[in-house]
Amino acid sequence: MIERIAILGTGLLGTSAGLALRASGFQGEITGWNRTPSEAHYALRMGALSAVAEDAIEAARASQVVVLCMPVYATLDYMAQFCGALTPDHLVTDVGSTKRLIAESAARLYNTPNRPAFLPGHPMAGKERGGAALADANLFRGAVWLFTDDPGARRSPQAVALVESWREWVTAMGARILDLHPVRHDEMVAWVSHLPQFAATALSALLQEEVGDAPELKDVGGRALREMTRLGASPYSMWRDIAHTNTEPIERALYALEQRLAHLRENLRTPELRGEFDQANRFRRE
Amino acid sequence: MIERIAILGTGLLGTSAGLALRASGFQGEITGWNRTPSEAHYALRMGALSAVAEDAIEAARASQVVVLCMPVYATLDYMAQFCGALTPDHLVTDVGSTKRLIAESAARLYNTPNRPAFLPGHPMAGKERGGAALADANLFRGAVWLFTDDPGARRSPQAVALVESWREWVTAMGARILDLHPVRHDEMVAWVSHLPQFAATALSALLQEEVGDAPELKDVGGRALREMTRLGASPYSMWRDIAHTNTEPIERALYALEQRLAHLRENLRTPELRGEFDQANRFRRE
Repeated sequence: MIERIAILGTGLLGTSAGLALRASGFQGEITGWNRTPSEAHYALRMGALSAVAEDAIEAARASQVVVLCMPVYATLDYMAQFCGALTPDHLVTDVGSTKRLIAESAARLYNTPNRPAFLPGHPMAGKERGGAALADANLFRGAVWLFTDDPGARRSPQAVALVESWREWVTAMGARILDLHPVRHDEMVAWVSHLPQFAATALSALLQEEVGDAPELKDVGGRALREMTRLGASPYSMWRDIAHTNTEPIERALYALEQRLAHLRENLRTPELRGEFDQANRFRRE
Repeated sequence: MIERIAILGTGLLGTSAGLALRASGFQGEITGWNRTPSEAHYALRMGALSAVAEDAIEAARASQVVVLCMPVYATLDYMAQFCGALTPDHLVTDVGSTKRLIAESAARLYNTPNRPAFLPGHPMAGKERGGAALADANLFRGAVWLFTDDPGARRSPQAVALVESWREWVTAMGARILDLHPVRHDEMVAWVSHLPQFAATALSALLQEEVGDAPELKDVGGRALREMTRLGASPYSMWRDIAHTNTEPIERALYALEQRLAHLRENLRTPELRGEFDQANRFRRE
């Protein structure tokens, strides 16, 4: 059913999507475009794309499904550019990390019978560093791919079929689909994704200040330290958009962690410490 | 030089030490003792021991080197019991997680010409769960093994030779030795080991409360969440002793992390967020 896909943004997720589509048997066109053209040519050489486009809008027009693989603000920018340039038989989807603003933009600019369709998506997969060089055909295997679709969307029959087909390809790439309300999505990822990231960033930044001048101490910490700071390598460029577009849920989660740490600190020598370990053990067991 | 070792406590570290000694070519006796005898027999069947002892003091007396592989308070208890029962030609060493109290006890009860020798040690290796079943001959390979010896120790020539020989076996097991002052040791591990553990415990306990009733959300978090909460499975039994015997350094580290998280929270939408990510990136790069 889908024969022409445009992947706009050929970083880690975009290039991995191209590779995963090919590995799952997709035989149609995959045209890639990237702000830095050399990255798109790299993805082409990796086999993730069948062609590199010079112009994002041209590539989008020539495809049936446009996959925006870029940070949230860039996604919002391209959504605004594309809504007038595409037809009701085009489906635009994305992989952005927060969904409330993107779903609001989709409701405002897409998903009426005379406008293109938009399906907000978010694969829960990534690495601590981006870029096509780390792309992997198996990146989505076993991962959850969230969608925050609008039940009130009014789409052309062609666009409805493209949505169905894209969901099938996502499953073919090895991901498990979970449908959520966009506000619930943003609250939930604040807990299970953004909080772990910001905790790792705070811990890494603190340790850089405390022991950064004694590199041998990093070895002392061993596997536990390496694991708890691996996400410290995550790039600001991506997380800035997440922090700006999901501020309140992240603030609530961070504040709750501060309180929990203070509670632990105040109870290092009381029986309450056992309660905290028991509760933590339960999270890992269940 | 060392021909008879007693390993008292055949959990993860004790059993791994037995396996690692064998794998490194140690051909002498390794007698094991455990409070729960079945664990010692399990270690025997794994090949970590050549015999199981029924009595800890008997096993210690019959050996040249006694390795205490138990939590800190139990280590302190056995140190007090053994100092009168062993000779100046015995070396006692340990693998306890904090070293200030153990080094103080060693200075008080050991390391004079008419008392047994004690060498405080701490291999920076472990898993999130204990027990002989997870033991591994390669647990110490590439890990740092810390010693906080007392430069003023006055030992018999025999004990001096045993210290030298034990350090060589530690190296043979694949560990890298680092010598530290015990107070500096405890401050340092508060940052690079205890802080990551308590951060993981607080994060896991918090998430259990927030999303524990929605197990599918753990899948959503993916690898990042799994990694940041893996240490949440660590047992209270071991960490209680660490919290009680290194309270002030851990309090300072936890308080610093609380402040760092608050700083992040207050700057989610300011340029200062970039500074925190840059600092965290540096920790991972250097």
